[in-house]
Amino acid sequence: SIDGQRLWDSLMAMAEIGPTENGGSCRLALTPEDAAGRRLLLDWCEALGCTWQVDRVGNLFIRRAGKRDDLAPVAMGSHLDTQPKGGRFDGILGVLAGLEVLRTLADRDIVTERPLVLVVWTNEEGSRFAPAMVASGTYAGAFSVESTLAREDRDGVTFGEALEACGYAGESPVGEPRLDSFFELHIEQGPVLEEEGETIGVVTGVQGMRWFDVTLAGQSAHAGPTPMRYRRDALAAAARLIDRLQAHALADESGDTKVTCGCLEVVSASRNVVPGDVKLTIDLRHVVENELDALQAYFEGLLSEVGETCGVTVTQERIWASPVVEFAPECVAAVERGAREQGLKYRRMMSGAGHDAVYVSRVAPTAMIFVPCRDGISHNEAEYATPEDCAAGTQVLCDAILERANR
Amino acid sequence: SIDGQRLWDSLMAMAEIGPTENGGSCRLALTPEDAAGRRLLLDWCEALGCTWQVDRVGNLFIRRAGKRDDLAPVAMGSHLDTQPKGGRFDGILGVLAGLEVLRTLADRDIVTERPLVLVVWTNEEGSRFAPAMVASGTYAGAFSVESTLAREDRDGVTFGEALEACGYAGESPVGEPRLDSFFELHIEQGPVLEEEGETIGVVTGVQGMRWFDVTLAGQSAHAGPTPMRYRRDALAAAARLIDRLQAHALADESGDTKVTCGCLEVVSASRNVVPGDVKLTIDLRHVVENELDALQAYFEGLLSEVGETCGVTVTQERIWASPVVEFAPECVAAVERGAREQGLKYRRMMSGAGHDAVYVSRVAPTAMIFVPCRDGISHNEAEYATPEDCAAGTQVLCDAILERANR
Ligand SMILES: NC(=O)NCCC(=O)O
Ligand SMILES: NC(=O)NCCC(=O)O
Repeated sequence: SIDGQRLWDSLMAMAEIGPTENGGSCRLALTPEDAAGRRLLLDWCEALGCTWQVDRVGNLFIRRAGKRDDLAPVAMGSHLDTQPKGGRFDGILGVLAGLEVLRTLADRDIVTERPLVLVVWTNEEGSRFAPAMVASGTYAGAFSVESTLAREDRDGVTFGEALEACGYAGESPVGEPRLDSFFELHIEQGPVLEEEGETIGVVTGVQGMRWFDVTLAGQSAHAGPTPMRYRRDALAAAARLIDRLQAHALADESGDTKVTCGCLEVVSASRNVVPGDVKLTIDLRHVVENELDALQAYFEGLLSEVGETCGVTVTQERIWASPVVEFAPECVAAVERGAREQGLKYRRMMSGAGHDAVYVSRVAPTAMIFVPCRDGISHNEAEYATPEDCAAGTQVLCDAILERANR
Repeated sequence: SIDGQRLWDSLMAMAEIGPTENGGSCRLALTPEDAAGRRLLLDWCEALGCTWQVDRVGNLFIRRAGKRDDLAPVAMGSHLDTQPKGGRFDGILGVLAGLEVLRTLADRDIVTERPLVLVVWTNEEGSRFAPAMVASGTYAGAFSVESTLAREDRDGVTFGEALEACGYAGESPVGEPRLDSFFELHIEQGPVLEEEGETIGVVTGVQGMRWFDVTLAGQSAHAGPTPMRYRRDALAAAARLIDRLQAHALADESGDTKVTCGCLEVVSASRNVVPGDVKLTIDLRHVVENELDALQAYFEGLLSEVGETCGVTVTQERIWASPVVEFAPECVAAVERGAREQGLKYRRMMSGAGHDAVYVSRVAPTAMIFVPCRDGISHNEAEYATPEDCAAGTQVLCDAILERANR
């Protein structure tokens, strides 16, 4: 079985690269910190006799030979980049758990039938280069290599330039190596496992998500002399929209409907001015694709209704849509067997967040394993998962990988 | 009768001082532009034989002698400072209408019993030095001279320093001269007169206003994996608050209840993060003081209710309160007689906005005259009042001033 203390030590060592004030990490994609994190991982893996290759968008494939090197490798991994004030676990756990699997096999001189690959996907967070999961998306053919290399950060630096600068512009074609299957361990990033007292989430798929930009254009006016009934208040309209959408989602007793207004800006705001222009973003999610269609239809109807009621012109643009993903039953089953055989409390669940596994699942049988994180908090320096839960998740990963690689 | 064309020409000439791209004016208080505007006015008034004095907070009193110079003067005026992208009428009309009254009397060699004073109040807008109406407030004893001189703009320049620099740091004691009465002509800054096809608003008082800063503290969380029922969404709570408050105000059929949320900020907003912290401002107004008390009580109850329902900690601070003002019946009556005798369509109305007259009314009998402004728009380069309406308002001002000065 895996060594939980060694896993924890490697997590804490990685967190020292780009440490933040409040105990988190800042390793934005393709920065010197990202490169230093990769280098540390490679040092550890080279010590185990692994070889590695980097593709043209910086995805890193670390290989441990198997008995049948002509077969496609069984893969595990996640990402090492973080949010600007990120935590020590989101992504990193999935990579260092893979390292711990490799070390465990090395300790025991176990050679699997199929080769193993530990993958570090570039720029999962999307904080530096939008969108999220862009390099696993490129690997899976969802984005072209050229478009990915041309994406710019806020300072106008392209993905390609940053990749060269940090030393991870590889030469191997994007899409290689082809994988037999892929397993990603991740913190849940939500509160369910913790609240329910369970250690493992057997992730059966990922809910669908759609992102919208909404603008509301009314008429700015003086707050004092403008009677309520003459107003075309863009913020009052936005409030009505958000409130009705919330009520709609809360009314779904299954809990599967999720709506979020994350950003809202009042243009030229002033305390005694009725807001004329508001911009906001909407994130709609559901685990069933046609329910997501229905949710979008409800949302669009609400936009019209609110626009009319409030005398405000409402426009929207759908800027991203990620369909519902169902992971491969044989991979999910391998994870579930691992959890059951370890005697861990687990639940089958859909992932609420997008992960590299979303895109990888388009080209290889894929599954994910979740472990609880404290208060469901992530994308935050306070992000925390216990050493015991990290070890349990890694053991399940190890078991699934072994089963799959020796089948 | 007054000369409408001459009035209009002087309005357009003043607008050339600090002109903005889209036909408005930028004469922030106590800037070189403000000084140039005052200088132009003084040139015009000196040509009429007027004398002037400036008090220690820069309020400018331009005097036309009467037959009985031992009596307190009858005053008229407003302000010459503008918003950063202000219009050509807000404040300026009240000052230049006063000039037009002085010119009309000079043309006809009319000498009134009481002396007349044309007042330019400093920094009415509050754009450079908060709060609004600060120098008329100081004149009326609502603020101390020292506190006013110490107020700072965004660059840390004090009111006193700016006053010295622009050459209008006067020596006369604040509170002098004492006024027999004060009349302020102003654009309505709302849509009622225009919508109702009326030329004159006989302003009987000013509604009470209270300003609040509100913070809502929930818990930021990932938009994907966090179930709706676990969320403590500060923006959803803010939306509920705004929506309920709007509904409450709209349900008042008298139209006297006014509520505005002018500023709303989501702290560390991100598209796929449930907002943890929101700050917003609330402006409550009513024409009846105890109805305003009731409105505040309703608002406070709503804050608690929304906080509880949404699992969000809500705090509020009342940062300003201006009680309901009732103008002096004899001054209001003089304005109403002026409107009636000119055969103008008029309505008695409360002012929705604060004006220098609010504070002056604490120390002298006061009234105001409103004229319509296009689409009710002010604090905007597009602000517009017709030459005919400006002339009509000025005629009513002239009649009221003459009646009052000769009584
Ligand atoms: N894991 C994660 O934060 N992915 C970003 C896409 C999403 O919002 O789910
Ligand atoms: N006239 C004016 O805009 N005054 C500022 C105070 C208010 O908001 O009414």
